[in-house]
Amino acid sequence: MTLPHRIRRSSRGPFEQLLWTVWSVFRVLQDVTIMVALGFGFLNSSLRRYGWSSVAFNLFLLALGVQWAVLMDGFLEQSFRKKVVIKLSSIKLATMSAMSVLISAGAVLGKANLLQLTLMALVEVTVFVTMRMIDRQHLSMDGHLSMMHIHVFATYFGLMVAWSLSRCLNERVMEEKNQTAKSSSLFAMLGTLFLWMFWPSFNSALLDVPKERKNAVFNTYYALAASAVTAISMSALARPRGKINMTHIHNAILAGGVAVGPSCHLITTPWLAMLLGFMAGLISIGGALCLPANFNHVLGIHDTCGVHYTFGLPGLLGGIAYILLIIYEVSWIKKSVISYQLFVGTGTLSLAVASGLIAGVLTGLVLNLKICKAPHAAKYFDDQAFWEFPHLAIGF
Amino acid sequence: MTLPHRIRRSSRGPFEQLLWTVWSVFRVLQDVTIMVALGFGFLNSSLRRYGWSSVAFNLFLLALGVQWAVLMDGFLEQSFRKKVVIKLSSIKLATMSAMSVLISAGAVLGKANLLQLTLMALVEVTVFVTMRMIDRQHLSMDGHLSMMHIHVFATYFGLMVAWSLSRCLNERVMEEKNQTAKSSSLFAMLGTLFLWMFWPSFNSALLDVPKERKNAVFNTYYALAASAVTAISMSALARPRGKINMTHIHNAILAGGVAVGPSCHLITTPWLAMLLGFMAGLISIGGALCLPANFNHVLGIHDTCGVHYTFGLPGLLGGIAYILLIIYEVSWIKKSVISYQLFVGTGTLSLAVASGLIAGVLTGLVLNLKICKAPHAAKYFDDQAFWEFPHLAIGF
Amino acid sequence: MTLPHRIRRSSRGPFEQLLWTVWSVFRVLQDVTIMVALGFGFLNSSLRRYGWSSVAFNLFLLALGVQWAVLMDGFLEQSFRKKVVIKLSSIKLATMSAMSVLISAGAVLGKANLLQLTLMALVEVTVFVTMRMIDRQHLSMDGHLSMMHIHVFATYFGLMVAWSLSRCLNERVMEEKNQTAKSSSLFAMLGTLFLWMFWPSFNSALLDVPKERKNAVFNTYYALAASAVTAISMSALARPRGKINMTHIHNAILAGGVAVGPSCHLITTPWLAMLLGFMAGLISIGGALCLPANFNHVLGIHDTCGVHYTFGLPGLLGGIAYILLIIYEVSWIKKSVISYQLFVGTGTLSLAVASGLIAGVLTGLVLNLKICKAPHAAKYFDDQAFWEFPHLAIGF
Repeated sequence: MTLPHRIRRSSRGPFEQLLWTVWSVFRVLQDVTIMVALGFGFLNSSLRRYGWSSVAFNLFLLALGVQWAVLMDGFLEQSFRKKVVIKLSSIKLATMSAMSVLISAGAVLGKANLLQLTLMALVEVTVFVTMRMIDRQHLSMDGHLSMMHIHVFATYFGLMVAWSLSRCLNERVMEEKNQTAKSSSLFAMLGTLFLWMFWPSFNSALLDVPKERKNAVFNTYYALAASAVTAISMSALARPRGKINMTHIHNAILAGGVAVGPSCHLITTPWLAMLLGFMAGLISIGGALCLPANFNHVLGIHDTCGVHYTFGLPGLLGGIAYILLIIYEVSWIKKSVISYQLFVGTGTLSLAVASGLIAGVLTGLVLNLKICKAPHAAKYFDDQAFWEFPHLAIGF
Repeated sequence: MTLPHRIRRSSRGPFEQLLWTVWSVFRVLQDVTIMVALGFGFLNSSLRRYGWSSVAFNLFLLALGVQWAVLMDGFLEQSFRKKVVIKLSSIKLATMSAMSVLISAGAVLGKANLLQLTLMALVEVTVFVTMRMIDRQHLSMDGHLSMMHIHVFATYFGLMVAWSLSRCLNERVMEEKNQTAKSSSLFAMLGTLFLWMFWPSFNSALLDVPKERKNAVFNTYYALAASAVTAISMSALARPRGKINMTHIHNAILAGGVAVGPSCHLITTPWLAMLLGFMAGLISIGGALCLPANFNHVLGIHDTCGVHYTFGLPGLLGGIAYILLIIYEVSWIKKSVISYQLFVGTGTLSLAVASGLIAGVLTGLVLNLKICKAPHAAKYFDDQAFWEFPHLAIGF
Repeated sequence: MTLPHRIRRSSRGPFEQLLWTVWSVFRVLQDVTIMVALGFGFLNSSLRRYGWSSVAFNLFLLALGVQWAVLMDGFLEQSFRKKVVIKLSSIKLATMSAMSVLISAGAVLGKANLLQLTLMALVEVTVFVTMRMIDRQHLSMDGHLSMMHIHVFATYFGLMVAWSLSRCLNERVMEEKNQTAKSSSLFAMLGTLFLWMFWPSFNSALLDVPKERKNAVFNTYYALAASAVTAISMSALARPRGKINMTHIHNAILAGGVAVGPSCHLITTPWLAMLLGFMAGLISIGGALCLPANFNHVLGIHDTCGVHYTFGLPGLLGGIAYILLIIYEVSWIKKSVISYQLFVGTGTLSLAVASGLIAGVLTGLVLNLKICKAPHAAKYFDDQAFWEFPHLAIGF
């Protein structure tokens, strides 16, 4: 397991200690599973005619991604041994890696069939696991930090894939199908709430030192609370008649958890976490208002569930906040340390963005090949292309 | 943390012990968060045209209330220090205090805008935290007991606010909008189930002695099981054709958990817990059948989600049961102890009711001021007053 | 509690140790409660006009079944004492026993009223608890294994009851009412996901040795992942135009967890768990395609929610896999041990099937008595027979 040696030398009996270790890793694994299976599954279910696909494909990608990530982790980490040893903590790590696929899927959703999504999952998990290994072995980053760049990596990967799939999109049809329905939106809210509640577990999952874990839980909690308040009030204030947009809420209340991720174990005052949460909420709402009309429209990217402003921009904010925090913290110790830390912090963030962009473009090209039998654009965002419906159940 | 000193002196190493403490407090915090964010959010989502608002406003009030309660707790408790120290257990306590706002919001729901709810949340948390401090410092109540009066306090606070907001209510319009829809009711059932499952965590959250915590979990579980069976069978038996009312079920199956709250750590036989659960279910179903027509109609209070018979009456039953239990338990020891315990028990219960009523009336008066821009009564219970809807999504 | 003696002799203080024990049992109890209350409640909610009943009746049967199982367990186990001692672990065990009722209810759903379901619950829990006692005392099976036969037992019990209730079923009416609706299906997916996520807790709930518990969690996780991937891809491949059937998915992604149950603590390589998951998914999808048309139609059994291929067939597969695994494991040790193990393994599995069939037929006969006031076949699968509806809420 990932618990440090000091625990193993404690006064407990070996039996009891094992029970506790298994227990503790299992609990974190379960929290992360709840986030990815339920949270992400329902987060993207607000599309009026695409609810079934978003939930079921999410589960499929998760189950596939976890198994693939366990294998890839095993091969890359333990390549010198003859046999890959799989532990409970390997599954925890693999589930977190598989989350990258689910984030990217949010941008691609409705525009790809199951075969394309499967291919995307395999490529993305491979690239992400390789990137994490480079971070760890060549840039000597700790596991927590390289995992926290998942949001940035997955967003730009997903956006690039979406870009290559959304070229022939008919605006009018899309708009009609891309509606949210009343009860679908409540399902999306359910997913959002699960993510919101379990985000502290995600941010602290790879931290072993109790003080760091406590800080991580604490700061994530505070940042999420701040971004929830910010998101709802900003969404109301941004519009002339004070009406709130449900889709913005789904996305922006999570921004705080994303933004505080890389630095959550280092922040020592709640004010800083709240400030990060506030800024993340602000950026996310701002992105939701501006990006679709400007950025996405100009570049021809159709970002189905708004991953760019849910995970991408807050993730960038988090990466920058981490770099600033390190500069501030170490500034009164040693100059040489700062410059190295600065180099590593900037390097890994850039690596995440760059590898996301490049791998995304390449994957997008592969998915456009004829073998994938991409669905016709008229069938985009439609459950009926993938699911058997009984006669009466088409309506709602 | 709130764990007693004996733990800190145990044979464990300091590292491992911290891990366990952080872990254990975090788990309880998470359970309580699930209850308040998911449970309360969806409990009140059964209104046909008000589902979005009830879920999202609930999250807003929660995030705001927790932050405010942490500050208030800090100022009142640690006023002698210069700096407020915030711990994980502070957030746990604050989340439980913020629950008072969510209970009250059930009575007010659909009749107030976001500004009014924000004001209500700030006032209610302040009054509740102050009341708990008085209970603890001047009546030497333990934290568990003063927290368990939250149901009574929040109910009467909410009813008074609802009273001042529901004066100009048009009966006919209200009835049309106040309907439950089929899938909304399933969402409400989801919220109810989450509350039902995690109520044992809530009732045991502030107890540190293992035996008391075990008793609390145990008795709450039993009381909830008894009240679920009672609620469903009574609802069927109370009507001529044996038809069950879904709204009654949502409310009455939780009554057992509320009623057993104050005495859950003292009860030693499951029969007593089951009896309390049975009586709470009975009272709650009885209240649901009688109160709206008699009490509410006469006094002109419109109690949107029936908090009076969900939390108020079972809470009163719980308070009285606690007093009776203490009289019975101590009766063969000392006369002087009884009278003091009796005084404290009655005193804190009355304080909860009184402060709820008074603070509620005052808050109601403030919310009726013109600055709050109260929505017109015609817009009550309507998501469209607060949310941006895409064209096609109005129906369901 | 169920923790072995070694723990009690450890170096911890008695206070801390109790806290940990209470805590650990409570967590498992909570996981199991989430599975049965939420998971099973919503798993069967996909019927278009029967959502309310399936969720609420599930809770009623659970609350009733748990209380009854605690009593029955107490009487059978501790019959020599004067007083039944109820512990937290008794409730955990009782909740797991009560799950048998919820599985069976899936076959009966929509064809029985509350009184019939109550009777069924009481009989089934009694028979199941007795069967477990026979397993344990006369065949010296451990608790885990005899619990894992719950799926087989409950399926055949439920099928027999359904058989006796579905004789006068009108095909056309049934088909019209037996539809799935879009948002109901999402609710069912929610239930399925909760079962999927918490199944590792269920399979490891009765194992105390840390290594076994770890193996159980691990293998269940792997089998579930494999069966989720298998279910979705097989459902797409089995149909000519590659369309996936949502109802099959609900059922088949759980098959892995059922099949791996009896042997989950013995399997040492993930490949075996994945193979079991894959085969279970295959059998479940195959059953979903073949059984309704052949088996059910010929015998006149109407299996509302497909428990036969969700729990029954994978459960049989799991029982057989356990026997094979024991033969393989012990084959190089002693011949006499094999034959005894083989006898016990086959014996308990047959006992589960036989007692399920016999008790089911007898219960079905009782439920057909006139005292039960069985609903007329025209009212089958209709919430309106049991629930008060406001005028406008009939539609969806």
